[in-house]
Amino acid sequence: MSKIVLPADRYFGPDAAQKKVAQQLYAIVQDLPLICPHGHVDPRMFADEHYDFGTPTDLLIIPDHYVFRMLYSQGVPLESLGVPRWDGGATETDHRKIWQAFADNYYLFRGTPSGQWLAYELKVVFGVEDKLNGENAQAVYDHITECLTKPEYRPRQMFEDFNIEVLCTTDAATDSLEYHQQICDSGWCGVVRPTFRPDAVVNMDTEGWRENIDALSAASGIDVVDYKSFIAALEDRRTYFKEMAATATDHAVLTPYTEELPEGEANAIFTRALRGDVTEKEIKRFTGHMLLEMARMSIEDGLVMQVHAGSYRNHNQSVFAKFGRDKGSDIPIPSEFTRNLQPLLAKYGNDPRLTLILFTLDETTYARELAPLAGHYPALRLGPPWWFHDSINGIARYFDQVIETAGLYNTVGFNDDTRAFPSIPARHDLWRRAASNWIAGLVVRGMVDEEDAAAMVEDASYRLAKSAYKLG
Amino acid sequence: MSKIVLPADRYFGPDAAQKKVAQQLYAIVQDLPLICPHGHVDPRMFADEHYDFGTPTDLLIIPDHYVFRMLYSQGVPLESLGVPRWDGGATETDHRKIWQAFADNYYLFRGTPSGQWLAYELKVVFGVEDKLNGENAQAVYDHITECLTKPEYRPRQMFEDFNIEVLCTTDAATDSLEYHQQICDSGWCGVVRPTFRPDAVVNMDTEGWRENIDALSAASGIDVVDYKSFIAALEDRRTYFKEMAATATDHAVLTPYTEELPEGEANAIFTRALRGDVTEKEIKRFTGHMLLEMARMSIEDGLVMQVHAGSYRNHNQSVFAKFGRDKGSDIPIPSEFTRNLQPLLAKYGNDPRLTLILFTLDETTYARELAPLAGHYPALRLGPPWWFHDSINGIARYFDQVIETAGLYNTVGFNDDTRAFPSIPARHDLWRRAASNWIAGLVVRGMVDEEDAAAMVEDASYRLAKSAYKLG
Amino acid sequence: MSKIVLPADRYFGPDAAQKKVAQQLYAIVQDLPLICPHGHVDPRMFADEHYDFGTPTDLLIIPDHYVFRMLYSQGVPLESLGVPRWDGGATETDHRKIWQAFADNYYLFRGTPSGQWLAYELKVVFGVEDKLNGENAQAVYDHITECLTKPEYRPRQMFEDFNIEVLCTTDAATDSLEYHQQICDSGWCGVVRPTFRPDAVVNMDTEGWRENIDALSAASGIDVVDYKSFIAALEDRRTYFKEMAATATDHAVLTPYTEELPEGEANAIFTRALRGDVTEKEIKRFTGHMLLEMARMSIEDGLVMQVHAGSYRNHNQSVFAKFGRDKGSDIPIPSEFTRNLQPLLAKYGNDPRLTLILFTLDETTYARELAPLAGHYPALRLGPPWWFHDSINGIARYFDQVIETAGLYNTVGFNDDTRAFPSIPARHDLWRRAASNWIAGLVVRGMVDEEDAAAMVEDASYRLAKSAYKLG
Repeated sequence: MSKIVLPADRYFGPDAAQKKVAQQLYAIVQDLPLICPHGHVDPRMFADEHYDFGTPTDLLIIPDHYVFRMLYSQGVPLESLGVPRWDGGATETDHRKIWQAFADNYYLFRGTPSGQWLAYELKVVFGVEDKLNGENAQAVYDHITECLTKPEYRPRQMFEDFNIEVLCTTDAATDSLEYHQQICDSGWCGVVRPTFRPDAVVNMDTEGWRENIDALSAASGIDVVDYKSFIAALEDRRTYFKEMAATATDHAVLTPYTEELPEGEANAIFTRALRGDVTEKEIKRFTGHMLLEMARMSIEDGLVMQVHAGSYRNHNQSVFAKFGRDKGSDIPIPSEFTRNLQPLLAKYGNDPRLTLILFTLDETTYARELAPLAGHYPALRLGPPWWFHDSINGIARYFDQVIETAGLYNTVGFNDDTRAFPSIPARHDLWRRAASNWIAGLVVRGMVDEEDAAAMVEDASYRLAKSAYKLG
Repeated sequence: MSKIVLPADRYFGPDAAQKKVAQQLYAIVQDLPLICPHGHVDPRMFADEHYDFGTPTDLLIIPDHYVFRMLYSQGVPLESLGVPRWDGGATETDHRKIWQAFADNYYLFRGTPSGQWLAYELKVVFGVEDKLNGENAQAVYDHITECLTKPEYRPRQMFEDFNIEVLCTTDAATDSLEYHQQICDSGWCGVVRPTFRPDAVVNMDTEGWRENIDALSAASGIDVVDYKSFIAALEDRRTYFKEMAATATDHAVLTPYTEELPEGEANAIFTRALRGDVTEKEIKRFTGHMLLEMARMSIEDGLVMQVHAGSYRNHNQSVFAKFGRDKGSDIPIPSEFTRNLQPLLAKYGNDPRLTLILFTLDETTYARELAPLAGHYPALRLGPPWWFHDSINGIARYFDQVIETAGLYNTVGFNDDTRAFPSIPARHDLWRRAASNWIAGLVVRGMVDEEDAAAMVEDASYRLAKSAYKLG
Repeated sequence: MSKIVLPADRYFGPDAAQKKVAQQLYAIVQDLPLICPHGHVDPRMFADEHYDFGTPTDLLIIPDHYVFRMLYSQGVPLESLGVPRWDGGATETDHRKIWQAFADNYYLFRGTPSGQWLAYELKVVFGVEDKLNGENAQAVYDHITECLTKPEYRPRQMFEDFNIEVLCTTDAATDSLEYHQQICDSGWCGVVRPTFRPDAVVNMDTEGWRENIDALSAASGIDVVDYKSFIAALEDRRTYFKEMAATATDHAVLTPYTEELPEGEANAIFTRALRGDVTEKEIKRFTGHMLLEMARMSIEDGLVMQVHAGSYRNHNQSVFAKFGRDKGSDIPIPSEFTRNLQPLLAKYGNDPRLTLILFTLDETTYARELAPLAGHYPALRLGPPWWFHDSINGIARYFDQVIETAGLYNTVGFNDDTRAFPSIPARHDLWRRAASNWIAGLVVRGMVDEEDAAAMVEDASYRLAKSAYKLG
């Protein structure tokens, strides 16, 4: 029976000279604590010290759109994978059967980052030795089920075993942060910080936007009836998030379009939107205006600002209708930053009090726009390769295309950006190995010396994330 | 005198460890039959068992726009290369003189895929040992001329010697498929299937579109007078192609724009077009609508649907005026798939009965749009690197940018897509070596084991093409 | 104390087999004279045989926007780096203090081309052994100051020591070329040729355009009052540049849009522009029209035409307001060539008397548009990787993405394109090593033989630049 391969020199290039340097560099960072400044782990799992992950299927398949999108692409219905339906329809409830379908199709993940992460999770996190397939599916299921009963597989213990120094969640502007409060109150030593993500109240085309505004009124205690009260409510929530240890905000936008609206115009759009009477173009302009407002607030309150641009959400309308958001059908679009960000950068880009971290799904913008922008504007930094690009080739392309022009020091290290908690160490491991390998490539080509290389790998693996997100 | 280099380890990376694995993988697929599911070889050459290729110049230069475009780019007039003129003007008729010009400029192909294919054809197919140059040009010409008199250089024999399992041609909707019928009737064992390509009747801006519609009426026996009869005629022709062993259709579009038109609107545009009264925008909308119609028909009749998007045809107007289509001046444009394909995918993308294979000339869409789309929609598959990108670097970029997100199993192996019949084994050889090398890179980095690697290389070289195109 | 690393095998890949070939190829071109067909070195420095570079800070920091943009991006104010202010405001005048800030932040250049060039300049040009840092900053400053007093650090001597065969400057259409005349008159053997760059009179949105037109009248002796006299004045200046040994022109455009205007329309726009009454769209159309006019003139007078497209100039408005042009905030935008250049190529692209050399900041156009265009049109050639892409990875991407389709012989070798005179040998050295390494990659993969490889590296390093720019 085939074993899971996960050799000690994995992800390093095969050249002996480069690999030797890569291993030396990796040894420096291998055991550093993990900085997790951006992700989607549910804070609830740390609020309750006895939190139970459920079945292996609950943990590894049902919530992971990286996994089920690939199975779906080959004709496996989402219903049969137990993905919960928004419309109340039936889905498969036999978790062993779902696991079997996953195992039968495990070959689909060959050569993919999901395949790499799963191999790590199965072998390192759960101690599975055999490569998953249709025959051993149930035995592996039994093994993981057994693991999940043990104390070392409680989330808090895993957090500590993973050596996580800090983990930031992503939370709606209207979130009570009750689980963060419970974590805080519990006396547990793990650091879990919230992140302020106001998309659901800022992006007027969000489903349920009007109700979200009401929730914002309730959360802030400020009756949101116009633009001014909206801004006040947002400022109030930012203050609360900051009190709750947030150091950053996050903003998802279809395009990074920015435009400063006169307050009167912003108010006119906002109040029309409250009445449900707003055009697509107005929504775009308002969102672009709000990016400027968020930059202004960040300068005032010191929260680091993240922008994730370029994902066309819910591209598959029938999947959305049945299963809702985040079901594997968000597809990137071409992005443009140079002209779109110009208004924001003209106003705030030279202000060293602002840290604006950009993420893209359009790799063509790395060398063409983002690296030149970040290599000039004091306020700008570049986030790590995002989503589809958080992979061994994606990371290599990022380093190759960003660093020469932006420099390493206008980047912010790594984000695991995951909702799959057990994949966190796998993702950081891949990043640290890929960074070691890439920097080793500079060393063997005589471009940096070993002293600089050692500093760079530690910066890329630990220090830059910590300092850029003010987690020090 | 310099010899043609074509070492046994060609196209593999130089690293010894990776090369060893690559060679092991290549050994698995080296002798597998060739699956040729998409190309432009003329079926006439297999209809007549005594078919004569003519001179070396007839075979290797005059019909090959990869070859003469490069010579033209350096100032060699197309007339002097014997490229036939559409306008009836004179061209060089001395084939030895044309061959001499080719040989004198052979250095232009250094480091190009054409250079690789030519080296293989000269050495492996024709047994030429010396590197072509101005001095040995006539001797090489004599040698190939001699070859072409022999029985083993008849197309059917070459087809068998090349180990072609199946070869699909590309044929107009109005084609009688008489040569396919003759091949069938001849009792020869070679499998040559037609492919239904209705561009000349669907794309209203094709030169001669109105006459093509008449030809469609004649071919189908359905008088095409409106949209409804047009659709009926297309369905009729598809049925005929299917009876003649076609398994696929092919559609060339400037952009992958799709839009479903109400039948009334489709009919209004079509009938205006019959009168020659149609705007560019209407043409675009109608073409986009017809992609949906073709998807519908594919679901009904089971023909695999191919879309080749993004080539600006006949960019050089004066070359077009003198020499007509396919003369080396088709130039790629930027393409967008996420928004353009959304209407078609919303309607048919979740239907597992549809296989829609996409090709692009815009490599930026690989990782940004195509891999995420194919990694989600059950109906979608990605075709191999097309045209300018069917090269050693193009293939490497394709694997690097597609597989991580789409997975290997949402791709369809290789298409040689050539009208240059003797280049077919060279092209498959390059693909199989490049695939072996790329998969070996996964092995030496510990990302897949040898068992998976062996399966992957066989899938990429043989099985995926066969199954995706229903050629099994 | 750490030493500057600059090993003899720098920039070559680590694989032993490939490196051996790369070194053999590099040995062929290492000592060839430098052809510098495009750049921004100030001719004044060669006009006066006693020209003094000033302090190390004057030479290496203040004029080099590659250097100060990186420092600025990390919060070092341009004022504190001595960058002269346009608005008359104060800047740091203590050059030792500026040097110290540079040295303190020298780590920012790790892994960047600026870092590579600086290492070469410090070690090879100035004999500095120790890696620059905050501690040794003043000692290094002293060392370079000492150097700069010596005769071997006069520009003419450096020009000869750098083994420059020819250096082309870039000069406004209105330039008197007095320094070129002085060089000529001086009897010094160095070849310094001007290049005709009429952007300031052609691009109507240039600040001071109206005054530039007056300067054009003065320089040409033709009173520019309408389109016809404008064209006559430009032709007059081209004649003068040609008499002064120019072989080329250069044109910077935001987009490569081209359109032929009827003379009446061109004249209407031009005369309105003289009155300050012109729209953005008219400016774009006029610029696009002038590209055709410049191509026509090039066909008539034989000057090679260069087009640099895609830089959004002065993106940072507040930096522009304080410091003026060329201060590190020019940011690339996406470019499109296939459709934009079609009108120009339709008219002049088939004319072998024209050499049109294209440069891009959008690498996505390499394989998608530029290589196919250059691999077809006789008039087209591709310039080397420009600006941000003149780096080890940028060069590798260029070769990988351009050569397969365009062929090496539709490229024009290297441009250093620098205003930093002491960086010239560093830049050519990097190019020659990167070219050697890339061609060695073809050799070890069996794609070209050693004979062809030797020819290719010499072409890429020397011959192509010389012949394309008619510098032979």
